[in-house]
Amino acid sequence: MPKLVLIRHGQSSWNLENRFTGWWDVNMTEKGEAEAKAAGALMAEKGLDFDQTFTSLQTRAIKTLNIALEQMGRLWLPVEKDWRLNERHYGGLTGLNKAETAAKHGDAQVHTWRRSFDIPPPVLEDGSEFDLSKDRRYAGIAIPKTESLKDTIARVLPYWDARIAPALKDGQRVLISAHGNSLRALVKHLSNIPDDEITSLEIPTGQPIVYELDDDLKALDRYYLSER
Amino acid sequence: MPKLVLIRHGQSSWNLENRFTGWWDVNMTEKGEAEAKAAGALMAEKGLDFDQTFTSLQTRAIKTLNIALEQMGRLWLPVEKDWRLNERHYGGLTGLNKAETAAKHGDAQVHTWRRSFDIPPPVLEDGSEFDLSKDRRYAGIAIPKTESLKDTIARVLPYWDARIAPALKDGQRVLISAHGNSLRALVKHLSNIPDDEITSLEIPTGQPIVYELDDDLKALDRYYLSER
Repeated sequence: MPKLVLIRHGQSSWNLENRFTGWWDVNMTEKGEAEAKAAGALMAEKGLDFDQTFTSLQTRAIKTLNIALEQMGRLWLPVEKDWRLNERHYGGLTGLNKAETAAKHGDAQVHTWRRSFDIPPPVLEDGSEFDLSKDRRYAGIAIPKTESLKDTIARVLPYWDARIAPALKDGQRVLISAHGNSLRALVKHLSNIPDDEITSLEIPTGQPIVYELDDDLKALDRYYLSER
Repeated sequence: MPKLVLIRHGQSSWNLENRFTGWWDVNMTEKGEAEAKAAGALMAEKGLDFDQTFTSLQTRAIKTLNIALEQMGRLWLPVEKDWRLNERHYGGLTGLNKAETAAKHGDAQVHTWRRSFDIPPPVLEDGSEFDLSKDRRYAGIAIPKTESLKDTIARVLPYWDARIAPALKDGQRVLISAHGNSLRALVKHLSNIPDDEITSLEIPTGQPIVYELDDDLKALDRYYLSER
């Protein structure tokens, strides 16, 4: 039976400061590293093992993966990194504190930006300090100026189809270390969650989510590893 | 101009204990991690950058690479891991303390095993605690029972030709994190070092070695980054 585990990176410094992060490459906090370590130890203890791993181009997800793999004695596994697993791009909200943003724009507006399925936040202005157009990790990629969750899903799923689903169908056990919204995209797809429900589905940091899948990659079961 | 940097992993626990290690997957010491961190900081400070990285399937080389890349803000670079960059397999010497081995077999014999170009140490016996035939990271690979440096070269160079040289010819800047003897194989090849000299060429831990190469990958210069 194919096995898939999803893990959201451990706490980042901007999770802690409650700022919109998106594609900005903030690092993890010590707590985040401890979460990643605990996740790896839990997977090892529960006897999980993998053949292929995937992550984003963002430090917090890559480090979470590396720390977890080290705990499992599996640093030697192949790691494929791709921008399509990056966090949702928060556009002009990037770097802003969520409470301050709510004070300025109103709770309702911020709630819409955070929780609407298809309404993106304002675009990131050219010349913003958070502009990534000069970052060569994204050379050749049309970096979004902002994304709704729908937009995020629209670039995550082609990567799932092209790279992850074939590995699973090939019998490989797969671990994906990514972000709240790129993982929402996968959970929505695998668990058939409606548009208006997926936006409020919380993906906790550092908690391995196990999918039992049939041969057609239909989800038979989904659970937190810590609860089994 | 293509650019190639080689780095030997930081000090491992068996470097410290002066034991033959080879393919046994010992971890790095704290000093080894500090060496890797310093190497990454030095490469960043000197303005080195990379497009592709290669390492072995052994934890100490992978961790050295990960730690150095993190220091450079380059954890997002692709990493290709392959057994052909593993350390020389020390056969039946694996796990033995070098001084004890010399006391038992004589200095001359141990010197031959360590420093001869084409005489391998005794084979690793079946059922040895250091037998890796059940380690699935090497599934499908004819794990050596022992290797001379010549044997090591014979599996490193085909990998160079197949994977690393094409990346360099494609204009990619390459970082390789590996081991004393897999790096000797590359240095011998690139710098045309005779059989009887390469065995005593020391590759220090955690010291980035820079190769300036022409378009045909002929070495124009080789130096320790710390000395420029």
